[in-house]
Amino acid sequence: MDPELLHQLLGNVAAGRTSVEDAAKRLQHLSFEDIDYAHIDHHRSLRKGFPEVIFGQGKTADQITGIMQRMMSQENTVLVTRIDRQQADQVVSILSDVIYHPDARMLVWERKKMPIRGKGTIVVLSAGTSDIPIAREACLTATVMGNQVESIFDVGVAGIHRLFDHKDLIDRASVLVVVAGMEGALPSVVAGMVSRPVIAVPTSVGYGVSLGGLTALFAMLNSCSSNVAVVNIDNGFGAGYMAAIINRI
Amino acid sequence: MDPELLHQLLGNVAAGRTSVEDAAKRLQHLSFEDIDYAHIDHHRSLRKGFPEVIFGQGKTADQITGIMQRMMSQENTVLVTRIDRQQADQVVSILSDVIYHPDARMLVWERKKMPIRGKGTIVVLSAGTSDIPIAREACLTATVMGNQVESIFDVGVAGIHRLFDHKDLIDRASVLVVVAGMEGALPSVVAGMVSRPVIAVPTSVGYGVSLGGLTALFAMLNSCSSNVAVVNIDNGFGAGYMAAIINRI
Amino acid sequence: MDPELLHQLLGNVAAGRTSVEDAAKRLQHLSFEDIDYAHIDHHRSLRKGFPEVIFGQGKTADQITGIMQRMMSQENTVLVTRIDRQQADQVVSILSDVIYHPDARMLVWERKKMPIRGKGTIVVLSAGTSDIPIAREACLTATVMGNQVESIFDVGVAGIHRLFDHKDLIDRASVLVVVAGMEGALPSVVAGMVSRPVIAVPTSVGYGVSLGGLTALFAMLNSCSSNVAVVNIDNGFGAGYMAAIINRI
Amino acid sequence: MDPELLHQLLGNVAAGRTSVEDAAKRLQHLSFEDIDYAHIDHHRSLRKGFPEVIFGQGKTADQITGIMQRMMSQENTVLVTRIDRQQADQVVSILSDVIYHPDARMLVWERKKMPIRGKGTIVVLSAGTSDIPIAREACLTATVMGNQVESIFDVGVAGIHRLFDHKDLIDRASVLVVVAGMEGALPSVVAGMVSRPVIAVPTSVGYGVSLGGLTALFAMLNSCSSNVAVVNIDNGFGAGYMAAIINRI
Amino acid sequence: MDPELLHQLLGNVAAGRTSVEDAAKRLQHLSFEDIDYAHIDHHRSLRKGFPEVIFGQGKTADQITGIMQRMMSQENTVLVTRIDRQQADQVVSILSDVIYHPDARMLVWERKKMPIRGKGTIVVLSAGTSDIPIAREACLTATVMGNQVESIFDVGVAGIHRLFDHKDLIDRASVLVVVAGMEGALPSVVAGMVSRPVIAVPTSVGYGVSLGGLTALFAMLNSCSSNVAVVNIDNGFGAGYMAAIINRI
Amino acid sequence: MDPELLHQLLGNVAAGRTSVEDAAKRLQHLSFEDIDYAHIDHHRSLRKGFPEVIFGQGKTADQITGIMQRMMSQENTVLVTRIDRQQADQVVSILSDVIYHPDARMLVWERKKMPIRGKGTIVVLSAGTSDIPIAREACLTATVMGNQVESIFDVGVAGIHRLFDHKDLIDRASVLVVVAGMEGALPSVVAGMVSRPVIAVPTSVGYGVSLGGLTALFAMLNSCSSNVAVVNIDNGFGAGYMAAIINRI
Amino acid sequence: MDPELLHQLLGNVAAGRTSVEDAAKRLQHLSFEDIDYAHIDHHRSLRKGFPEVIFGQGKTADQITGIMQRMMSQENTVLVTRIDRQQADQVVSILSDVIYHPDARMLVWERKKMPIRGKGTIVVLSAGTSDIPIAREACLTATVMGNQVESIFDVGVAGIHRLFDHKDLIDRASVLVVVAGMEGALPSVVAGMVSRPVIAVPTSVGYGVSLGGLTALFAMLNSCSSNVAVVNIDNGFGAGYMAAIINRI
Amino acid sequence: MDPELLHQLLGNVAAGRTSVEDAAKRLQHLSFEDIDYAHIDHHRSLRKGFPEVIFGQGKTADQITGIMQRMMSQENTVLVTRIDRQQADQVVSILSDVIYHPDARMLVWERKKMPIRGKGTIVVLSAGTSDIPIAREACLTATVMGNQVESIFDVGVAGIHRLFDHKDLIDRASVLVVVAGMEGALPSVVAGMVSRPVIAVPTSVGYGVSLGGLTALFAMLNSCSSNVAVVNIDNGFGAGYMAAIINRI
Repeated sequence: MDPELLHQLLGNVAAGRTSVEDAAKRLQHLSFEDIDYAHIDHHRSLRKGFPEVIFGQGKTADQITGIMQRMMSQENTVLVTRIDRQQADQVVSILSDVIYHPDARMLVWERKKMPIRGKGTIVVLSAGTSDIPIAREACLTATVMGNQVESIFDVGVAGIHRLFDHKDLIDRASVLVVVAGMEGALPSVVAGMVSRPVIAVPTSVGYGVSLGGLTALFAMLNSCSSNVAVVNIDNGFGAGYMAAIINRI
Repeated sequence: MDPELLHQLLGNVAAGRTSVEDAAKRLQHLSFEDIDYAHIDHHRSLRKGFPEVIFGQGKTADQITGIMQRMMSQENTVLVTRIDRQQADQVVSILSDVIYHPDARMLVWERKKMPIRGKGTIVVLSAGTSDIPIAREACLTATVMGNQVESIFDVGVAGIHRLFDHKDLIDRASVLVVVAGMEGALPSVVAGMVSRPVIAVPTSVGYGVSLGGLTALFAMLNSCSSNVAVVNIDNGFGAGYMAAIINRI
Repeated sequence: MDPELLHQLLGNVAAGRTSVEDAAKRLQHLSFEDIDYAHIDHHRSLRKGFPEVIFGQGKTADQITGIMQRMMSQENTVLVTRIDRQQADQVVSILSDVIYHPDARMLVWERKKMPIRGKGTIVVLSAGTSDIPIAREACLTATVMGNQVESIFDVGVAGIHRLFDHKDLIDRASVLVVVAGMEGALPSVVAGMVSRPVIAVPTSVGYGVSLGGLTALFAMLNSCSSNVAVVNIDNGFGAGYMAAIINRI
Repeated sequence: MDPELLHQLLGNVAAGRTSVEDAAKRLQHLSFEDIDYAHIDHHRSLRKGFPEVIFGQGKTADQITGIMQRMMSQENTVLVTRIDRQQADQVVSILSDVIYHPDARMLVWERKKMPIRGKGTIVVLSAGTSDIPIAREACLTATVMGNQVESIFDVGVAGIHRLFDHKDLIDRASVLVVVAGMEGALPSVVAGMVSRPVIAVPTSVGYGVSLGGLTALFAMLNSCSSNVAVVNIDNGFGAGYMAAIINRI
Repeated sequence: MDPELLHQLLGNVAAGRTSVEDAAKRLQHLSFEDIDYAHIDHHRSLRKGFPEVIFGQGKTADQITGIMQRMMSQENTVLVTRIDRQQADQVVSILSDVIYHPDARMLVWERKKMPIRGKGTIVVLSAGTSDIPIAREACLTATVMGNQVESIFDVGVAGIHRLFDHKDLIDRASVLVVVAGMEGALPSVVAGMVSRPVIAVPTSVGYGVSLGGLTALFAMLNSCSSNVAVVNIDNGFGAGYMAAIINRI
Repeated sequence: MDPELLHQLLGNVAAGRTSVEDAAKRLQHLSFEDIDYAHIDHHRSLRKGFPEVIFGQGKTADQITGIMQRMMSQENTVLVTRIDRQQADQVVSILSDVIYHPDARMLVWERKKMPIRGKGTIVVLSAGTSDIPIAREACLTATVMGNQVESIFDVGVAGIHRLFDHKDLIDRASVLVVVAGMEGALPSVVAGMVSRPVIAVPTSVGYGVSLGGLTALFAMLNSCSSNVAVVNIDNGFGAGYMAAIINRI
Repeated sequence: MDPELLHQLLGNVAAGRTSVEDAAKRLQHLSFEDIDYAHIDHHRSLRKGFPEVIFGQGKTADQITGIMQRMMSQENTVLVTRIDRQQADQVVSILSDVIYHPDARMLVWERKKMPIRGKGTIVVLSAGTSDIPIAREACLTATVMGNQVESIFDVGVAGIHRLFDHKDLIDRASVLVVVAGMEGALPSVVAGMVSRPVIAVPTSVGYGVSLGGLTALFAMLNSCSSNVAVVNIDNGFGAGYMAAIINRI
Repeated sequence: MDPELLHQLLGNVAAGRTSVEDAAKRLQHLSFEDIDYAHIDHHRSLRKGFPEVIFGQGKTADQITGIMQRMMSQENTVLVTRIDRQQADQVVSILSDVIYHPDARMLVWERKKMPIRGKGTIVVLSAGTSDIPIAREACLTATVMGNQVESIFDVGVAGIHRLFDHKDLIDRASVLVVVAGMEGALPSVVAGMVSRPVIAVPTSVGYGVSLGGLTALFAMLNSCSSNVAVVNIDNGFGAGYMAAIINRI
C-alpha cells in the first residue's frame, strides 16, 4: 500500500473521518491479497518504496486487468512491463485511465504524477537503433519513479566521436544506464569517462555469435571499468528501477 | 593524480613555493605515463575520483612494484587486487609501507586514511563460509574508499532464520553487497526485504553444475527482485567499488 | 494390467465363471501389445504399480486414441500428458468418458476413482503466476494416483512473507513439490524449513539468461539444502509421480 | 540441537537436576552460534531431524575442527563430507573419537549409534568401478542416518545380465540410489524394473563428451522412467540423505 | 555415373552400336556438371559406389527437380532426403515415376530395383514412437541400397523386457542401427548384447535438457559398449547409408 | 560525406559558384546527423573511405527510407543489408532508383558506378547450394565497393576434384572469400592451396550439431592454415567489405 | 571366456581328461565374477567375440592387476587402455608377460597371437603429429584383434598433396580410421575419396576454440560425406575396435 | 623449399656447377619429406611464399629439433611457436644459431634477414599488460616475414584518451593487429577510427565470464565495425602472419 495513502487513511481514522470498521476492511489485505492466480504483495510499497510491478509476458489480459484493479485501490502508481499492443488494448478498453506506451511496451497508471525524488539526472544511452525499445523501457520506468531522465540514442563505438559530442550531458549525469547489443562495448567506454555508477543492459540485438545477448552480457560483466554493474538481457525495466533507487540514496 | 595533491602543487606554484619547471616536470605524465609494459593512467583519479587499481593476477612482482612506485608519487591511495602471498611478500620487501591483507588477497598503500565520504553504511553479506574471501575483498575496497562497512557472513538460505536475525542491520544499510555461490539465491531474498540497491556477487564456490559460478551468476541476473545488479564471478573488488560510488551520490 | 483386474480374472477362472480359453485370450498381451507404432507395456502396472503414461507431445490424436483404447481394456486409470486442447477434443469426441484438464494439459480416464493410498498430504508450491500450469500437472498426477494434495501458488522469494504465511500447511506436508522458473530459489528456501523430501521442478519461465529453464535447473541441483532432488524442466508430471510413490513407502 | 538431548536437558531442569542459569547458558545458541567464519545452525536438528552437515571442500582443517567441536556439544552425530586424508588426519589428531572413511572421503562422529529408523532397505547401485567412491558416500550417509543399506557395484548396462542377477535384492529395496557416469543409462534401466523411488547420481567419471558429468546428469533428467529424481554431479551425500528421509515417510 | 550404365555405354562403343561422338557427349559431364546453383558430382557413383544424394532441406522444388533430371540420365537410383510433402508433390507432378515416402520424408527414383548386395540383415531399432520417422529414413535408405532390412520400434529401456523379446532377430543382425532420443540409452544396451557393429542415431525428441538431441548424442558417444559409432542428430539417412556399406565389406 | 562530393563543394565555394552560407548549411551535419531514431555518421566516408552501411534487420521500412534519403544527399553509394523482399518493395516504391537484389537480400543505390579500385580479382567460393545467398552478399558488396569479383559455388570437400578443377582461377585471386556451413572445412583446404589471404564465412546451414553455424565458425578459427581470418556467422557483407579494403592496400 | 578355451575344456570333459568337478569349478564364473571392486564379465567373449577391455584411467595398479589375473585364466587376450607408464610398470613388475606400449598408452597380454580374421586392410590416418598417440591406440587395438593394419600420419588438409600421395593405399583399405584435432576436416576429405566406411576420431589437440576436441567432434558429425560415423574424443581404442568388427562382417 | 634457394640450385645445374645427380638428390623431398612422426611440407614455401611453421605445443624437443634440421637445409627462415623456455633451451643447445624469444615464446632461425617486403607499417595494439605476450608473438611473426612493425601496448578502452594519444601512428598503419582479452572491445573502437583492415586477436586473459577468451572472441566477431576479421584465441602468430600477407597484396 502506498505510504502516503496509508498515512491519509490512518489520519482519517484519528480524526474520526473514517470508522475503525471501514479502515480495518481496507487494511485487511495489507500483507498480501490472494486472488486465485496471484498473491498480490500489497505490503511491497511500504517495504520497498515502490509497489510490485506486473510482468506482462505469459499473463492473459484478464489476469493483468484483475491484478491492476486490486492494486489501483491501494497504490499511487501501477506499472505493467512486456505487454504487446493487442493485450494492452484489451486492458485499456476496461481500465480507461491507463496509458499504453508502445515504444517501451509498458502500461502505466498514475493516480497523480510522482514528484521528482531523484537527486540528479539519470542519463540513458543506447548503442544502436534496434536497442531503442529497451532504452525507452528504462527511461519510462525511471521517469515514473520520479526522476529527471535524458536519453542519447545510437552512439555505438564504431563512430566514437558521436559519443564524445554528448560529453557535457554525460558528465552531468548522477547515474547512467547504458544499453547495447552485439559486442556490448559501449558501457566500458562510457564508464571509463565518468565517476558515476553505470547500469549496463545487454540486448538480444544481433545475429550469429551475439547468442541472443549472451555475448553482450558477458562482455559487460568483464568490463575493464569498475563502475559497472549489469542486469539481465533486455531488462530495461530493471535498469531504470535500479538507477532510480540509486539516485535516491 | 589525486585531486588534493594537484591542488597543493598548483597552490605551491601560485605562492612561488614551487618553480614552474619543477611543477611542469611533475605534471608531464598527468595524462598517462608509459613504462614499457604499462600505460599508467594518472589522469584517472581526476576523471573518476579514484586512481587506477592494479589487477595483480598475471603480472610479475616486479611489474606490480614498478607500477605502484610510479602511482605512489601521484596518488593518496594505491590498491592491488588478486595477489597471492608469495608475490605480495616480494612487493612488501621493497615497498615497506604497503600492507598485505591475505584474507582479501589485496595490497593497500595509503598516504593517509581517506575520510568517510559515503552517506550511509554499506552492508556486505555472504552465503557460505567459502564465500568469505570474496566478501572480504568487497569490504576492504569499500572501506579504503572512505565508507562505513559492516559484514554478515554465512547466512545462506538453507537456514533463513539466521538472516532474519540481522534484520535491523540490513534495514539500516544504504547499499548492500550480497556474495553467494552454488544456487546464488541469497541476493533475491535480501533484495526482497529492502528498498536499497543490492550489488550481487556470484562466486565460483561449489561443484558439479555450479559451473564455476555461472549458475549463481545466471540466477542473480534472473532475480525476481528488481533492486539487484550483478558483477562478474568472484569480483568482490568491483562490488565494493560500485557500492562505494553509489554511496556517494 | 491392473493388479485388481488380474485378480478378478483369475478368480473368475478359478470359480468357473470364465473359461480358460477366454482368460488366455485376454492375457495374451500381458507382457506387451504391438500395435504398429507402439509396443504397449501392459505389464507395467503389475511391475510398477501404475500403468504406462502416454506422452502426448509428438503423437497424433489417432495414435493417442488407439493406445488409450487398448489400455482401457486392461487398466483402471489411463493418463495422457502434454496434450493441447485441439488434439484432446479429437480424442474426447471418440472416447467420451475421458476428461480433459486444460490447465494441466492432461487427459484422464478412470474406471473408478483410485482410493487414497498416500500416507500424508502432498503439498505443491509454485513461485510465480506463469509456473501454475506445471504445478497443476503435478497436482493432478498425484491426485489421480490416490493422494491428498494441496497447493500454494505465487509465493516467490521476492516477498518471502507470503511463503511464511503458509507455514502450517508446509509443516504438515509429507512430501513437497516446489515449482519455480527464473532463479529457481524457492526449493532451497522451502527445503530449509522442513525435514521432508522436496521434489524440485524447474520451469522454462523467464527470459534472457533463464536459458529456457537451465538456470533454474542448475540452481536447484546446487541447492544448499540436502533434502532436494530434481526432475527435468517443466516436468510437472514426473514430480507428481515421484511424490506419489514416495508418499506410499 | 539434537531433540533427545534437548528433552534430557529440559527434564533435568524440571527435576531440579540442572539450574535454570546453566540450562539457559547451554541453550543460548539454540538458534545459531556465530563463530566468526560460520553461523552454525544448531536449530537444524530440531527443525529438520538431522544436524547441519559440514561441507569440507574449501574449508581449512582448523575451521572444520572448530565447527565440529561446537556441534559435538549439542548433537548426537556430526558429519563432514568431501574431506581428503591430509585434512582429515589433522582433525582426527585433535578430535580423537572422529573416524575417517577414506573410501567415502567423509569424517563421522557419533555420540552413540543412531537406531534403525528407516522402514525398508536402501539399495545403492553403481555402474562402474570408478563410480564406487560416490556410491560409498551415499551408503555411509544413509547408514549413519539410521538405515539398513546394501550395495551392488559395477553393474553397468554394457553387460546387463550382471544387473539381472541381483533382481531379488533390487525388488526388495524400499528406496534405490543409482550412481553412474559416462552415458548415465543405469538409473533408467533400474527404474524400469521397480515401483520404488530411484535417486539418480551422475558422476564426473569419463572423458571427452562426458563433459565432467553433465552428459550423465542430462541423460538421467531425461529418463523415460517416471520414478527417477536427480541430484548434483558427484553428490553421493545428497542422494544418501534424500534416500534416508524418504525411507522414513 | 552408374558403373553398370558406364559399362553398357563403353560396350556399345566397342561394338559400334554407339558412335564415338555420341558417347563423348554423354560422358562430357563425367567429372561433374555445373548447373548454376549446383556442381553435380556425376563421378561419385564410380568413386563411391552410390550416387550423390540430394539434401532437400533449404532447396526449392525447382532446384530439386533440376538436379534430379540431370542425375536420372546418368544413374540407376536417385534419392532426396528431408523433403516435406508440399515440395515433394511439386516434384512428383513433374517427374511422375518418382515416389514420395512421407513417413521417411524421402523421394526415391529407381530405374530398376537394386539387387540385394548386403551380406546379412540390417536391423533398425527405435526407442520411442516419436523416433519412428528417423528410423524409417534409415530403413528406406538401406533398402534402396540393396539390403535386407528389418525393424523393431518402441523398445525403450524403461520396459526392457520388450527388447529381450526380440533377442533372436537382434542376434541374427549383421549390422544394427539404433535410434533414440531423450537419454539415448538404447544403443548401449543393444550393443552390450551383440558382437556386431551398432550405428547409433540420436534424435531431437524430448524436452527440457534433451537439448534438441545433444544429450542423446553425448550419451551415445560415451557408451560403455565399444561396438558403437554415432552419426549426427536425426541423421537416419546417414546411419542407413553407413550400415549399407558396412554390410558389403 | 563522400570525399569526391566534398571536394566538389569546396571547389565551388573557392570558385564562387556556391555561397559560403549554402556550403555551411550543407556541411552542418558533416560530423553526424541526429534524426530521432538514428545518429547518421556522415563523417564515416571521409574517415573510412566508404559510407555507413544500413543493417536492415530489425528496422522498419520507414526508418530505412528515412536514413537512405539523408545519406543519398551526401554520398555516392548507399547499401542496405539483410532486408527481405516485402520491406524492400516498400522502400523502392518511394526511392525508385534503388535496386533490390533478392539473392543477396540487399538494397543498392549508386549515384554513379564506383570505378575499379581493387588491385586484383576477389574470388568468392561456397561449399554448398544452401550457402549461396551468403556468398552472393559478399560478391555484391565487393563489387559495389569497386572490385573485380568472380565466384565458384558448390565445391564442398566431399568431392574435392570439383574444387581442383577451378585451380587456375583460385591461383589468380588476390583475396579469397570462402563460405561454408556444416563442418566448415573448405576454407582450410583452399587456404592450403594459396599464398593469399582468405576471409572465411561460416553459415548457419546444417542441422543437429551444426549448432546454427557455431561448428563451422569454430572449425574455421581452428584452421591449420595460417592465412585465414574469420567473420561472424552468415556475415557475407562483412567478408566482402574486408576483402575489398584488403584488395586496396 | 574365450570360445576356443571353452571348447577345449568341454572336449576334455567329454574325453574324460578333465573331471566334471574341475570343469564345474572352472566354469562357475562363466557369467561374471564379483571381486569386490568389479563384476568381471567373463561371458563377454562368448557373447561379443572379444573379452572385456579394462579402462585404466581412474583405477589403481592393484585393481588393474587383480582384474587382469582373473581374466588371464579365462581368455586368450587381455587389453588395458589409458594407462600411464608409472602404473604400467607396477603391473608389469607383477605380471611379467604383459607388454606396455607407451606410444599407445596400452597394456597387452596375449596367450598366443590372434590369427588374422579381418577381410582387408584397415588404414589409420592422422592429421597432425600431436594426434599420433590416439592413432597408435587405434592401430594397436585393431592389430591385436587380428587385422592387417597400415598407418599414414601427419597428412592434414593444409597441404593436401601429402594425402593424395597415399591414394593407392587409401583406395585399397577395407575400413578407414581417421584421427584429427583442431578443425577436424580430414575425415570429410578422405571419406569423399573412397566407398568404404570411415570411423572418425576427434582429438583434444588444439587450443582456444578447439574446445578440448568438441569442435573436431561436431565438424565430423556434420560431415558432408555420408560414409562417416564418429566415436568419442580421443577414443582411439573404440575406433580400432569398431574397425575390427566391421572388417569381419 | 625457399624459391630463392631453388633458383640458385637450378642456376647451378644450368651452369654445370652442380651435377644432375646431386640436384636430383637435393630435390627428392621437394613435395614433402616423411620422417616417421611428421610429413614435412617442403613444397609450402613455393606454394605459399613462406615455409611451414612448427607448432611447438605437444611436440618433444627432439621432434622439434628433427623437423628444424630438415627444414634448415631447404629454407631461409624457420619458426617455432608456443615453445616454453625449457624445451627451447634443449633445441638451442643443439642448433646454436637458433634464437629464442621468451616474451613471444618463439624460436627463430634465419639464414639471412628477410628484406622488407610489406608496403606499409603494421601496427600491433594491445589492451592490457597481460595481453602483451600474444601481441609480441604477432609483432615478431610479422617482422620475420619482412615487415615494418610498430606496437602500442596497454591502451584499453577504460581510459580511451591513452588510445587517442597515438592517433597519428594508428592513422599511418597499412594493417592493424588488435589484441584484447576480457570484454574484447578495443578492436571495434580502433576499427571505427581507420579505413584499413584490422585483424583482431582475442586472448584468454580474464576470469569468471571471460570464459577463457570466448567472450572476447564473440565480442570481436560481433563488432559493429565492418573492417574486422578474427583469429583464434591467443593466436598472435596467425594474426601476424595474416597481417604480413595482406601487407603484400
